[in-house]
Amino acid sequence: MESTVSGSIKNLTPQDLVPVTVPAMNHPTEKQDGPPPTPVAPAKRIGYAIVGLGKLTIEEILPALSTCKFSKLVALVSGDADKAGNLARQYGLDPAAIYNYQNFDNIKDNIEVEVVYIALPNSMHKEFTLRTAKAGKHVLCEKPMSTNSKDAQIMIDACKAAGKKLMIAYRIQYEPNNRFVQSWVRNNKYGKVRLIESTNVQNSGDSNQWRLKKALAGGGSLPDIGLYCINTARFLLGEEPEWVSATTYSTPGDERFKEVEETVLFQMRFPGGTLLNSSCSYGVHDSKRYRVFADKGGWYGMDPAYNYTGLKIEVSHAEGKVEYKENPSLGDKDHFALEIDHMSRCVLENKMPYTPGEEGLQDQVIMEAIYESARTGKPVNLKKIDGLDVFRGPAPDED
Amino acid sequence: MESTVSGSIKNLTPQDLVPVTVPAMNHPTEKQDGPPPTPVAPAKRIGYAIVGLGKLTIEEILPALSTCKFSKLVALVSGDADKAGNLARQYGLDPAAIYNYQNFDNIKDNIEVEVVYIALPNSMHKEFTLRTAKAGKHVLCEKPMSTNSKDAQIMIDACKAAGKKLMIAYRIQYEPNNRFVQSWVRNNKYGKVRLIESTNVQNSGDSNQWRLKKALAGGGSLPDIGLYCINTARFLLGEEPEWVSATTYSTPGDERFKEVEETVLFQMRFPGGTLLNSSCSYGVHDSKRYRVFADKGGWYGMDPAYNYTGLKIEVSHAEGKVEYKENPSLGDKDHFALEIDHMSRCVLENKMPYTPGEEGLQDQVIMEAIYESARTGKPVNLKKIDGLDVFRGPAPDED
Amino acid sequence: MESTVSGSIKNLTPQDLVPVTVPAMNHPTEKQDGPPPTPVAPAKRIGYAIVGLGKLTIEEILPALSTCKFSKLVALVSGDADKAGNLARQYGLDPAAIYNYQNFDNIKDNIEVEVVYIALPNSMHKEFTLRTAKAGKHVLCEKPMSTNSKDAQIMIDACKAAGKKLMIAYRIQYEPNNRFVQSWVRNNKYGKVRLIESTNVQNSGDSNQWRLKKALAGGGSLPDIGLYCINTARFLLGEEPEWVSATTYSTPGDERFKEVEETVLFQMRFPGGTLLNSSCSYGVHDSKRYRVFADKGGWYGMDPAYNYTGLKIEVSHAEGKVEYKENPSLGDKDHFALEIDHMSRCVLENKMPYTPGEEGLQDQVIMEAIYESARTGKPVNLKKIDGLDVFRGPAPDED
Amino acid sequence: MESTVSGSIKNLTPQDLVPVTVPAMNHPTEKQDGPPPTPVAPAKRIGYAIVGLGKLTIEEILPALSTCKFSKLVALVSGDADKAGNLARQYGLDPAAIYNYQNFDNIKDNIEVEVVYIALPNSMHKEFTLRTAKAGKHVLCEKPMSTNSKDAQIMIDACKAAGKKLMIAYRIQYEPNNRFVQSWVRNNKYGKVRLIESTNVQNSGDSNQWRLKKALAGGGSLPDIGLYCINTARFLLGEEPEWVSATTYSTPGDERFKEVEETVLFQMRFPGGTLLNSSCSYGVHDSKRYRVFADKGGWYGMDPAYNYTGLKIEVSHAEGKVEYKENPSLGDKDHFALEIDHMSRCVLENKMPYTPGEEGLQDQVIMEAIYESARTGKPVNLKKIDGLDVFRGPAPDED
Repeated sequence: MESTVSGSIKNLTPQDLVPVTVPAMNHPTEKQDGPPPTPVAPAKRIGYAIVGLGKLTIEEILPALSTCKFSKLVALVSGDADKAGNLARQYGLDPAAIYNYQNFDNIKDNIEVEVVYIALPNSMHKEFTLRTAKAGKHVLCEKPMSTNSKDAQIMIDACKAAGKKLMIAYRIQYEPNNRFVQSWVRNNKYGKVRLIESTNVQNSGDSNQWRLKKALAGGGSLPDIGLYCINTARFLLGEEPEWVSATTYSTPGDERFKEVEETVLFQMRFPGGTLLNSSCSYGVHDSKRYRVFADKGGWYGMDPAYNYTGLKIEVSHAEGKVEYKENPSLGDKDHFALEIDHMSRCVLENKMPYTPGEEGLQDQVIMEAIYESARTGKPVNLKKIDGLDVFRGPAPDED
Repeated sequence: MESTVSGSIKNLTPQDLVPVTVPAMNHPTEKQDGPPPTPVAPAKRIGYAIVGLGKLTIEEILPALSTCKFSKLVALVSGDADKAGNLARQYGLDPAAIYNYQNFDNIKDNIEVEVVYIALPNSMHKEFTLRTAKAGKHVLCEKPMSTNSKDAQIMIDACKAAGKKLMIAYRIQYEPNNRFVQSWVRNNKYGKVRLIESTNVQNSGDSNQWRLKKALAGGGSLPDIGLYCINTARFLLGEEPEWVSATTYSTPGDERFKEVEETVLFQMRFPGGTLLNSSCSYGVHDSKRYRVFADKGGWYGMDPAYNYTGLKIEVSHAEGKVEYKENPSLGDKDHFALEIDHMSRCVLENKMPYTPGEEGLQDQVIMEAIYESARTGKPVNLKKIDGLDVFRGPAPDED
Repeated sequence: MESTVSGSIKNLTPQDLVPVTVPAMNHPTEKQDGPPPTPVAPAKRIGYAIVGLGKLTIEEILPALSTCKFSKLVALVSGDADKAGNLARQYGLDPAAIYNYQNFDNIKDNIEVEVVYIALPNSMHKEFTLRTAKAGKHVLCEKPMSTNSKDAQIMIDACKAAGKKLMIAYRIQYEPNNRFVQSWVRNNKYGKVRLIESTNVQNSGDSNQWRLKKALAGGGSLPDIGLYCINTARFLLGEEPEWVSATTYSTPGDERFKEVEETVLFQMRFPGGTLLNSSCSYGVHDSKRYRVFADKGGWYGMDPAYNYTGLKIEVSHAEGKVEYKENPSLGDKDHFALEIDHMSRCVLENKMPYTPGEEGLQDQVIMEAIYESARTGKPVNLKKIDGLDVFRGPAPDED
Repeated sequence: MESTVSGSIKNLTPQDLVPVTVPAMNHPTEKQDGPPPTPVAPAKRIGYAIVGLGKLTIEEILPALSTCKFSKLVALVSGDADKAGNLARQYGLDPAAIYNYQNFDNIKDNIEVEVVYIALPNSMHKEFTLRTAKAGKHVLCEKPMSTNSKDAQIMIDACKAAGKKLMIAYRIQYEPNNRFVQSWVRNNKYGKVRLIESTNVQNSGDSNQWRLKKALAGGGSLPDIGLYCINTARFLLGEEPEWVSATTYSTPGDERFKEVEETVLFQMRFPGGTLLNSSCSYGVHDSKRYRVFADKGGWYGMDPAYNYTGLKIEVSHAEGKVEYKENPSLGDKDHFALEIDHMSRCVLENKMPYTPGEEGLQDQVIMEAIYESARTGKPVNLKKIDGLDVFRGPAPDED
């Protein structure tokens, strides 16, 4: 499918990936350590330009890049020259590697840049994806992919035409605890999943922020955080919903929700019969969780589920007269580093990303149906899609 | 409102309620004990006839009565003479105090019986409420009150006409941890509640049980367990919903759900702007919980919430850079004993129950709207109801 | 061993124990219910006289008796006639069944009384055990059995001579969650237990209470609450310690600890090599817990562990790279009812109690060694005892 | 005190520390974010040579350095040239910056190296501290500081004579959650702390590892992990113990414990009257926790407490009839990065480290007393030390 899409100029050899041997310390009955960290030499890491120096970039993406094993920062793109200059100094970047929105297209001449990570307001994703593809670079684009499905399709087409990879930054799909839950769903642990409940709510501040502007964000809580509920359910099941039903509500008089919706309650059904019931809101105290209910003696999920750190798996099951509550844990890894390094490995090994543009487009289609259902007060049917993981690339095999 | 409704033949004096003094053992900074148990003399306790000797009666109601302070078992009513005989022997009841469905009306002559606790399949609630009222006894009726709102109204009218009290057995409304959560909602702890999520799911067994027969149960998971989500949200807020929206689903080919629905997802909005999003199901592993999301820095709720024992309050809030997860606890009391003793105190003191027939009727009205919404695929508006707790009696002041 | 000890005048037949059939409600993959409650007819229950109407009797023992299946209250013994009269009224007891410390010996003529439950200050346990045995009644004696090992031996001898049963009220040994943990220890779940940590601390109030008077209590935190750490470790392992080591400390100037010690830190080793490290204190906020550390990948225990309600099992183990924290639960049952009914069944079936006088004596021996170690600043060796559960009767087989 | 000790060649200016402004996203009632990450320019970061490329270095220290804001890797020192070469490649280090144990002293000519981080087996700490001081570099030395107090004093003297800083790597003292607990202890939250329980146990594997060799490790579980219990109690209270008492035990026949002890149970008392009861072991499943018991209605602590990640604060307190269990959290930061950056800031600002050599020496003195008590079977008194935090430098003020 991606045969005409180019990979990297870097040439990784097997010995680049051989871990340094670490002597065993603990008894074999104890928790087993993963392989020791094995970064490839900086010269062989994929270089990233970050476009958009907002909160996410400063607090998450830049620190994550410092911990990456296959990726490194090589350029910054911003409309704010001062801010870009300060960050470049902090991270030891040559000021020559700073671009602005006007001269961004010159990035095509920067051989160090192989991927452009787009962390801009949603409405700008399309423009910069198109300019990136045109510059001959791969794209890692923040979620939501765009503000509508038409733009999303255009972005996919542009990257395909340019022979460049396009990945949407669905960090949850690369996070080990979520992948563990996914394996349980796929293996029918405690039976078949008949119901999923998923919640993503937080309490927005400053009513002037771009997330609350329709033109920039495309919507309110749904595309920003409700999207996690949709995308994670699809990721867990591997299926695509048949219909959606939804209600939106904004507290009258609340300044923050003049342009975008505060709260969406939405439901959908998947072909295997699983129902999803979800809530997302911008108006209440932070909570991000999901629970997956199976039909043979158990449920499991995460609370918190969608936070950047501190995820916690929750399980309930029974054995005879004993009821078990469990918290399995695979530890806490930097979600952004995992996601960025996946993109880098796809580039290095010329593979399709696990969450390509098509994965993002499908969420846009579903969100449009949700808004339509809320508007019309009726369930909306979606095009039937057969098969499992039809919008995803090969599952990550990295540890 | 209940001025023409009679109380008890018993005459409780203030000294009946004086606790025996217990010396303080712990430091005053430790958790404070409640007053010591202060049962009134058995001769002054209200006598109950239990109608229907199923699982609930045998496992919960009969043991609860042994721990009551204002209530006692004085009669059993069953269609199964052997079972009734065995239970009478176990609980030391005179075989003369056993009735069957035919001779039940003779209970009017049993001066020991002041309340009839109806624990029959839902469709039989009406008949026995009417016969009880006619026999001149008060009624404590299990939830759901009936299989439709028309019957519920008839039950209310019959008791009123007979001058007898009618209480619906909403045990959650008498349980201290739930009442603690209610006090937080009413006092705007962490701000106003904008969203409630509430779930009640369990996994039904034997497809021949009455709960899965439409004629006996009136419905599936909704009236049996989804009702908790409706009733508890109403109890917490004190308000009545303006509209409901719902979807039902039953797994094709599942023998258990030939007559009644497996799963209902339903939403409603309350006049103050609070949304409720709920799921109930008979097809997945047991989970009963709710979470109340407020708009000034906190959420709280219970998980588990609707179980007979082991309820657990969960709280999340932040102070500066510190995030708190909390579990306040008021201990574990027998819900059935609390509810039965409330009824007895209402009888002894001639008060209206906190959850009278009107409270049950309102749930029937809402459930009918939920079914209608699921059937029509459209939201259903409800009659606007102003005021707080308009269907409830005075709040219990017992400890 | 107890062949010359008498049982009961009651004659229980197998059909007294047949449960009433309860229809299955849940799916077989869900948590299995125990058999339904099956109380024997009141006339066949063993009658108890309670001696000592303090906090424990009023708040725990009397309410527990109301829920017992094999036991009932038939007499009260107190030095306070008013209090006894009030409690008799509350529990429907004939005033003729009230005794005082002077006329207690007349209880021998009360055929309804088969067991005397001694819930007096520790120093009075001996006198009333001897008087009870002389009156021809069985003894259920609160822990600690006595204030010294010599008295404990005299109590055992007196009951044996009188052909009456003597049980010490170690409720933890009858509690299902603790018994579950015991089964894991005995079956080497996660390997052999090499270390146990056990803590029992609480914050005493009124410095005039009998628990803080040396002459009445025999000691401070050690015999009252530290005893749980000793007794539970012995119960879990089934072994007897080889040596003990200890330190005591009381905060200078704290009025409460003029006569008895505030805090004891103590250690012991069992023949299989397991170490116990324990703390008990009367001077800090309530905490009661133990953790059992095994040598093949897991630990488990309870926190809280020794409270009357709300016990919680905690487990940690690893499987490959996944670490599990677990909370198995067997539900919450009234510890006092379990313990009292065990005594009744021993009487009804003429069996030796699981925790006879010898079990209590052994704790006295160990506590004396702990005090000696604290006094001398040196470890104290104990007499070597071979075998498992050598001081216990047959394990309870009741559910 | 450290006036003659030199700082760094780097010249940090206030503007190096100005954070890039990040727009507020959440409501002010939500958890407040800390300042955004503000690394100083790489050229201004303090350069570290790491000596000893074992598990700790490969899995923790090297990855931590990548996330540091004031620190960077500039040299590696190892006896294994291949391993050093591989790690240098992975982290982009010039092979010229690799030293071995023979040519280590040449590091004095490497102007990039300002601090040497000693992560060698315990017995080698002295030699390399002395050689580092002689080379004119500051020392950050892993715990335990040495294998005996005499060596520890020599290390302190050598650094002082050379005018170089010496810090012991007590990461717990720099970790925000532990510092939060410390602030509660110091402010008498819930009253004065009368008792601390602290546990550090894990299950050792390969019996040939250096940790199980007396000559290299100096001891068994005590200096490696029991040390956390000692050091953290001292850190929380700020006081120094008056006496210690201890017992050691090793399972007979266990190959791992031929040279060093498996388990130590130890107790100590602090001048303010606080008792510490601790267990450390190399023979059982991993558990690292402490609980601090106060005398006015509360206890608090951490479980897990000493792990590298996933620490969890636990609190219990009561308000009236409500009992609260709480988990405050300050999030998860890399302990090693925090500790290394503290050292760098001390160098940059010429301050005394919070945990200087004197802090490490005091632990050695206490551990020697513990071993003596275990050997003699008697408590051992320690030299009385007045004042608070007498062995510590100024508390870190960095966020």
